[in-house]
Amino acid sequence: MESKKFILQERDIPTAWYNVMAEMPTKPHPMLNPGTKQPLKAEDLYPLFSKEASNQEFNMDDKWIEIPDEVREMYKIWRPTPLVRARGLEKALGTKAHIYFKNESVSPVGSHKLNSAIAQAYYCKKEGVTNITTETGAGQWGAALSMAAKHFGLDLAVYMVKVSYNQKPYRRSIMQTYGAEVIASPSMSTKAGRKIITDHPNYQGSLGTAISEAVELAMSTPNCKYVLGSVLNHVALHQTVIGLEAEKQMEMAGEYPDVVIGCFGGGSNFSGISFPFMRHNFSGDKNTRFIAAEPASCPKLTKGELRYDFGDEAGYTPLIPMYTLGHNFSPANIHAGGLRYHGAGAVVSQLRSEGMIDAVDIPQLETFEAATLFARSEGIIPAPESSHAIAAAIREAKKANEEGTAPVILFNLSGHGLIDMAAYDQYLAGDLTNYEVPDAEIKANTEGLQGLN
Amino acid sequence: MESKKFILQERDIPTAWYNVMAEMPTKPHPMLNPGTKQPLKAEDLYPLFSKEASNQEFNMDDKWIEIPDEVREMYKIWRPTPLVRARGLEKALGTKAHIYFKNESVSPVGSHKLNSAIAQAYYCKKEGVTNITTETGAGQWGAALSMAAKHFGLDLAVYMVKVSYNQKPYRRSIMQTYGAEVIASPSMSTKAGRKIITDHPNYQGSLGTAISEAVELAMSTPNCKYVLGSVLNHVALHQTVIGLEAEKQMEMAGEYPDVVIGCFGGGSNFSGISFPFMRHNFSGDKNTRFIAAEPASCPKLTKGELRYDFGDEAGYTPLIPMYTLGHNFSPANIHAGGLRYHGAGAVVSQLRSEGMIDAVDIPQLETFEAATLFARSEGIIPAPESSHAIAAAIREAKKANEEGTAPVILFNLSGHGLIDMAAYDQYLAGDLTNYEVPDAEIKANTEGLQGLN
Repeated sequence: MESKKFILQERDIPTAWYNVMAEMPTKPHPMLNPGTKQPLKAEDLYPLFSKEASNQEFNMDDKWIEIPDEVREMYKIWRPTPLVRARGLEKALGTKAHIYFKNESVSPVGSHKLNSAIAQAYYCKKEGVTNITTETGAGQWGAALSMAAKHFGLDLAVYMVKVSYNQKPYRRSIMQTYGAEVIASPSMSTKAGRKIITDHPNYQGSLGTAISEAVELAMSTPNCKYVLGSVLNHVALHQTVIGLEAEKQMEMAGEYPDVVIGCFGGGSNFSGISFPFMRHNFSGDKNTRFIAAEPASCPKLTKGELRYDFGDEAGYTPLIPMYTLGHNFSPANIHAGGLRYHGAGAVVSQLRSEGMIDAVDIPQLETFEAATLFARSEGIIPAPESSHAIAAAIREAKKANEEGTAPVILFNLSGHGLIDMAAYDQYLAGDLTNYEVPDAEIKANTEGLQGLN
Repeated sequence: MESKKFILQERDIPTAWYNVMAEMPTKPHPMLNPGTKQPLKAEDLYPLFSKEASNQEFNMDDKWIEIPDEVREMYKIWRPTPLVRARGLEKALGTKAHIYFKNESVSPVGSHKLNSAIAQAYYCKKEGVTNITTETGAGQWGAALSMAAKHFGLDLAVYMVKVSYNQKPYRRSIMQTYGAEVIASPSMSTKAGRKIITDHPNYQGSLGTAISEAVELAMSTPNCKYVLGSVLNHVALHQTVIGLEAEKQMEMAGEYPDVVIGCFGGGSNFSGISFPFMRHNFSGDKNTRFIAAEPASCPKLTKGELRYDFGDEAGYTPLIPMYTLGHNFSPANIHAGGLRYHGAGAVVSQLRSEGMIDAVDIPQLETFEAATLFARSEGIIPAPESSHAIAAAIREAKKANEEGTAPVILFNLSGHGLIDMAAYDQYLAGDLTNYEVPDAEIKANTEGLQGLN
């Protein structure tokens, strides 16, 4: 564990986010109105999101978007985050590869999710919003938004998937300690929730249902906006602070990554670590490989179809151009709850379709094996989600060993696993299993979805 | 939450620990052999502890003790830790006081305990030890030592108080993930354990019993040493990296603390933040107040007696000169498990007896009120132990408001509370209570203990 950290000062926190849409060779396809099938404009999202977030969602022109002072001040609570040379892991693997990780787990809520939660809460506050609402699965996003909402004096209602609400009481308590209201979803507080409870009294909830409830609350409540933690372009934008800091830190280390890896759910942390480095690929200066590491049980980038699909299960959202497993796809109950999402965001999907992003899907047991090796060699217990990135980095290092090469590998440690120890408990007891998705299931779920032009 | 962090570079990690015993006006009374009542020497501890730790325990001469390169390399995993100006808390309190905290919660195991765990594991490894053993209550110390032992290739057996073993499975899983063996205490693996189980089949364990088991294992196993996480002089020594870093960071902030506060269990984190600043009191250059914040349910410094007493319940250890509630004192089951210890270390006890350290005892509900205010204003959910320091800092700020003063207050945030959310859950539900210790109980427990000369 002779790790070596590269530490920046507060003045090194980026002053602007990097907007990849301004530079990508082909712009992403537009979101569509599901009724008219017409492309959406920023104004169409104003009823749901803050105006600033809506504008950012459609901004194809500005390469850099200034980070408001109020947001940057709050970033100072934990940013800049360290970049670490994982010498302990390298030694354990007997590799000549140089492995680095960006440690986003040092945030007070334990993950990268705060980077966007703060920005979105700030824009709502600035625009006179008094209430915000969101959904959360395992609770990482809900915890981050709870902290941000409290800071800006916003009331927050979080719809938490019922099975998690009951099984993960610690994450619920974190949100409540920050002062948020947490509602098990489906609930009786919305039409969508009431309908589901009436039809299926024992239904334990899903992210799709929770999104529907939060959206309904936002649309039916004065001065209330909806806030989302991944998938969308403006969320990925806010996360680019990760890669921008890492770029400076790799310079301090005197290296540049040959490979950049992030785990992949909706795309927020993968985009955050990747996009800033990708701009040097766009310019032709570099030729870095970018690898999205997704679960074998939810493999949209490796096995999904590129289609127009809804962002939620109920079909309330606009149609998004995405690699998808189908919005009714029901992922297996793996412990990496943050990766259990059926689709990839529009930008990542476009880049993937052009071959600018690679993807791997990794079985659950391999991710816990990687996580345990990482904990024992680097001292940090990773979140089950982040362990997918670690496993992908280990695969790259092993491949390098076979090939006799020594690449520079950078991955994002998006969060720690200290609130996920029940998962480790099951792993150490031999009680975890792998899940594979049958091709026929993906085919059935994506059949009939509209293709991209 | 406009907090302002003061960030050091790796080169600023101290190269030597500060040994307060070399400079304190009156040396601490010696530990005694309980049989002969003769003062102990370093050699007397060699069978139990590493030689280096034993020598440090008795070192009254060297003001600075070099930190081995191997230890300092491992400190780099998370050190230096940030110093933070708690502007959010200041605003919430409407105070002119400047409040700073040293954030030791950023360690990968979530607390300051690693600072000594790494040093002690290193000395054992260096001296050819192959196995180490310790006890743990809530599990913070056990988690830290598990990580350190794995790094240095030592086998570790942790005796975990049975009630915690069953109630806090997450901390147990953390130790196991790092590769340690965790045994519920009392166990059948030691004579001490077997005797208690035979006499009291349903006994749920205590720190005293767990210490007895660990000591017995160390004494009866070849090449095995015992390691302790608080109370002793060498443990406090290792923790002085906290205060030494904080001193540099206060300089960066252009201020010097009028008050330094740490929560108090056995003394490790309080000593770590305090001793480096105290040396400027010794020299007459400064007149800082030092406040140990202990639970009202375990008030050894505020209500205990200064006596010779055992470090463990069973009476296996040397006699230590300490403020004590009696080694058979049974503290109430508060959530700040790390503060449930009957005595204070020899150095702190000596300094306290000379009036160089103040102490306050704080009811449990006040600590959770402080913790929740801190979480909502600074974004970090503190450990129940650390919340005692926060509550004491808030008392000082409120007093300053009344007096119209603006002191500089520094406290140590020894750990985060993300693995203690069950406690917050109970607090938010109104299910927590205060515990006060009747004076008569303290009197009965300390009667008959030998006084100091």
